[in-house]
Amino acid sequence: MDVSAILLIHCPDQPGLVAAISNFIADNGGNILDLDQHVDDERGVFFMRVEWDLAGFRIPLPQIAERFGDAIGTPFHMQWQLHFSNERPRMAIFVSRLPHCLTDLLARWQSGEWQVEIPLIISNHDTLRPVAEQFGIEFRVFPIDATNKAEQEERELALLHEFAIDLVVLARYMQVLSPRLINAFDARIINIHHSFLPAFPGSRPYHSAHARGVKIIGATSHYVTEELDSGPIIAQDVTPITHRDPVDALVRKGRDLERTVLARAIWFHIQRKVLSYDNRTVVFD
Amino acid sequence: MDVSAILLIHCPDQPGLVAAISNFIADNGGNILDLDQHVDDERGVFFMRVEWDLAGFRIPLPQIAERFGDAIGTPFHMQWQLHFSNERPRMAIFVSRLPHCLTDLLARWQSGEWQVEIPLIISNHDTLRPVAEQFGIEFRVFPIDATNKAEQEERELALLHEFAIDLVVLARYMQVLSPRLINAFDARIINIHHSFLPAFPGSRPYHSAHARGVKIIGATSHYVTEELDSGPIIAQDVTPITHRDPVDALVRKGRDLERTVLARAIWFHIQRKVLSYDNRTVVFD
Amino acid sequence: MDVSAILLIHCPDQPGLVAAISNFIADNGGNILDLDQHVDDERGVFFMRVEWDLAGFRIPLPQIAERFGDAIGTPFHMQWQLHFSNERPRMAIFVSRLPHCLTDLLARWQSGEWQVEIPLIISNHDTLRPVAEQFGIEFRVFPIDATNKAEQEERELALLHEFAIDLVVLARYMQVLSPRLINAFDARIINIHHSFLPAFPGSRPYHSAHARGVKIIGATSHYVTEELDSGPIIAQDVTPITHRDPVDALVRKGRDLERTVLARAIWFHIQRKVLSYDNRTVVFD
Amino acid sequence: MDVSAILLIHCPDQPGLVAAISNFIADNGGNILDLDQHVDDERGVFFMRVEWDLAGFRIPLPQIAERFGDAIGTPFHMQWQLHFSNERPRMAIFVSRLPHCLTDLLARWQSGEWQVEIPLIISNHDTLRPVAEQFGIEFRVFPIDATNKAEQEERELALLHEFAIDLVVLARYMQVLSPRLINAFDARIINIHHSFLPAFPGSRPYHSAHARGVKIIGATSHYVTEELDSGPIIAQDVTPITHRDPVDALVRKGRDLERTVLARAIWFHIQRKVLSYDNRTVVFD
Repeated sequence: MDVSAILLIHCPDQPGLVAAISNFIADNGGNILDLDQHVDDERGVFFMRVEWDLAGFRIPLPQIAERFGDAIGTPFHMQWQLHFSNERPRMAIFVSRLPHCLTDLLARWQSGEWQVEIPLIISNHDTLRPVAEQFGIEFRVFPIDATNKAEQEERELALLHEFAIDLVVLARYMQVLSPRLINAFDARIINIHHSFLPAFPGSRPYHSAHARGVKIIGATSHYVTEELDSGPIIAQDVTPITHRDPVDALVRKGRDLERTVLARAIWFHIQRKVLSYDNRTVVFD
Repeated sequence: MDVSAILLIHCPDQPGLVAAISNFIADNGGNILDLDQHVDDERGVFFMRVEWDLAGFRIPLPQIAERFGDAIGTPFHMQWQLHFSNERPRMAIFVSRLPHCLTDLLARWQSGEWQVEIPLIISNHDTLRPVAEQFGIEFRVFPIDATNKAEQEERELALLHEFAIDLVVLARYMQVLSPRLINAFDARIINIHHSFLPAFPGSRPYHSAHARGVKIIGATSHYVTEELDSGPIIAQDVTPITHRDPVDALVRKGRDLERTVLARAIWFHIQRKVLSYDNRTVVFD
Repeated sequence: MDVSAILLIHCPDQPGLVAAISNFIADNGGNILDLDQHVDDERGVFFMRVEWDLAGFRIPLPQIAERFGDAIGTPFHMQWQLHFSNERPRMAIFVSRLPHCLTDLLARWQSGEWQVEIPLIISNHDTLRPVAEQFGIEFRVFPIDATNKAEQEERELALLHEFAIDLVVLARYMQVLSPRLINAFDARIINIHHSFLPAFPGSRPYHSAHARGVKIIGATSHYVTEELDSGPIIAQDVTPITHRDPVDALVRKGRDLERTVLARAIWFHIQRKVLSYDNRTVVFD
Repeated sequence: MDVSAILLIHCPDQPGLVAAISNFIADNGGNILDLDQHVDDERGVFFMRVEWDLAGFRIPLPQIAERFGDAIGTPFHMQWQLHFSNERPRMAIFVSRLPHCLTDLLARWQSGEWQVEIPLIISNHDTLRPVAEQFGIEFRVFPIDATNKAEQEERELALLHEFAIDLVVLARYMQVLSPRLINAFDARIINIHHSFLPAFPGSRPYHSAHARGVKIIGATSHYVTEELDSGPIIAQDVTPITHRDPVDALVRKGRDLERTVLARAIWFHIQRKVLSYDNRTVVFD
């Protein structure tokens, strides 16, 4: 399969944006494979994802970013990212003691469902080391307590850099990250929260859902920001429950949701289909 | 179709409850059509809905309540309600200016989908009078402001009694009811709230949902209690949205949810399938 | 609100299409409000929906079609339609005896949810005349039997032309239309079928669903083609059922689906969001 | 946790069934934990699932079956099964080359989500041996071709008996089983089919779904019977798709459905919540 280029763009809206971008591609011999565009009328912001075939493209791959920036990006005051379809993002997984999301992610990676590398798993407990070993992945433990959090996160951060990690996935990691770590991976840390946010943020959402007597439970995958469980939502899904379901049934039904919703969010991210703006996401699905 | 009897029961759990109730029915010649039972282990409470054919039942209909109470209800400390399948509950609709739920309810009534009477519509505005007239139903307006709420609700309450109303449905009625009215119709006032509660209670939930950037919106139907939007939930449903949906699209998509969820809750109630207990519902679906 | 123009296009894929179209708009002073594009790789077909603001557009509205055709449509061998956001399509409803879809459509029209005219209802029975009268709409009855179908459809067709109908909606109309009528309204007749097509085509799908023991039922809205229940699908939705649901419960639950799915399909159509190609639809949602 | 007993019953409906069964339990000191009952009016068949605590039950566990049979089962002409909550059914998995369902099942087993043993995996290819080894489970290959099918299935059957298998799960096993194997495990072979049956039975359902242009895809888990893809349905679920999804996107989205739906069906089966009757299931959820 040929390599394609993907541009993710947002900028102040103005006439001629689509024409300028599509001319840049067409004039250089590119064929657009997929173009999706959105204007947020309220905020006056233009969003676009465009993917084009590089087969006959006349700009060499390493020069595309510079040429696009000079010709289009800078003049139109764009925030933009350029990706190539043959990239393999490097993903680290943070996990605590619950295996269901971890195993699911590793199975997808192992079966080739995702074009990613998973070189590193970080945990605050030793519990899931056997799962990591089963899949042959480096597993590092950093126990966290009230006194050592800052220094442990420094070590984690150093390790993320050492392993050249692009994307961090919190696969039911039961620690709140500090701003320093969050900011080092802005819009590149994906969490799965086991409720239909903004309902039931924080801990023990299944207990809260049961207590409130809701008839549907949910899971939410979002980018992590400094405010707990309040970052831009990438994906959500729900499943019906009944009065017959005690809390442990919610936990069981919720596991399937968590797996699926987290995987969906990661898929969007690694396919470069997500733009985050003003604490909301544009998902070009 | 023959008449059947429906018992809705809750009481402290203990061995022998099902046997006692089913013996009462069998010994008197009744054939059970449907029996659903639930035990809340945490609270130690037994819930049951049982429906039986009265065709060969040897206790005359007007004596069933007394006989059941003496033989089973009182000895087992039950809270119970007895209904008959040929009852036609009398339902009043409260509405403000938005027609979509009102029209939907009236269309279901008109087509015979529901076995109810709808003799009365109450509003705080005159806006929807033409809809009421279109369906030939009494429409009364009680404008509410800061100064007259108590006395207007007194008049509404008197009217509800005058019309022998069994069930009040708030079909997007934009006023908070006072405790006096709520308590007069305990577990007999059904509201539709246009969000997936407990997310976005109060006013303008679609605006809040849009601001938070959720990927799914919902609607919730619940019994009204004194605490706003916090009563026992009867039914909920959701629909996916995307970044392309501005607030007015949420409003449009939400209308279909509101109609369906409210109708479903009313259906459960008039089929005598709902028990409310400890701010939660048991829905024997 | 200002008027906008909407182009729906499909044509053989080739490089430069987006650039050509967006240049046509930008060069004439139009600002793109929404652009969605899709390439069917298998078939090599390009699809686009683009909407732009006519506020500063320098081509007068009546000349846009000709100018676009000459400059872009013809050279690129496009099939295209041009619509304007202030159009009010004229919709006729065909119905038999079941009121639920009809009333739902009329309520949406009455409340202003849709920007359409509904000047005409056609039925093969007199049953629903009161509903038509309730909403003040012309109701014409054409009883159909084995001997008169062709001539009755001729009369219906004449009536559709007389009323300048743009769109025909079969709202549970229990007659199969003849090719002549279908072809006169190609991709402009929308049907609601009460199953999750292609499962259970033809009559009595709820009975078939019950007999097969499915756990989910559905409804499908599609453009009508000569082959029964086989036209391009516009919208589908489903709802869970259980072993407790006899056929009449499926009918009841299905009604809510039918209403919602049909309304969704009509919305897509009148918003000019649907392209039909090779018996499939592209829905630019 | 204490051991409980579970009875699954069906028999001709008649008055007094619930009373007879609940008296048998109460009179012997059992406390009903859960009772769910259903009458199929059309067929005149009574179905029940009842679970009771054995803590104070006065009949010793090994004698319950005989005592129940004599007192209730035989006199009322019941088909019944008795299970105990501490049983661990022994499950064999059949698989071909696709790992996603297999890995998912093994991960659930490994994490203790299910109270089952999985001592054996059978395949017609060697492809997934590494997955079996990763989880430490016996993996046996029986290549099937036109000439050896009968004898290979004999060997498989012998192996199933040797491993004392109670339940066979076809986790995307791409061979049709012969009647002899099917009948040896009547209502104990669960298959996952990658479509919303009865739509798209047989091979390549995602290709068929794409060709038909459906807007929703599904997965169906059912007991295997001699007629292909036509056995009693245990669980189904669906997910929306759009025109943007080529066949490989359907395959990808479908994988998540297949995993979840198969797991749900297995859960119902091992919780003894499924009764199969007349090619339909009663799922006491």
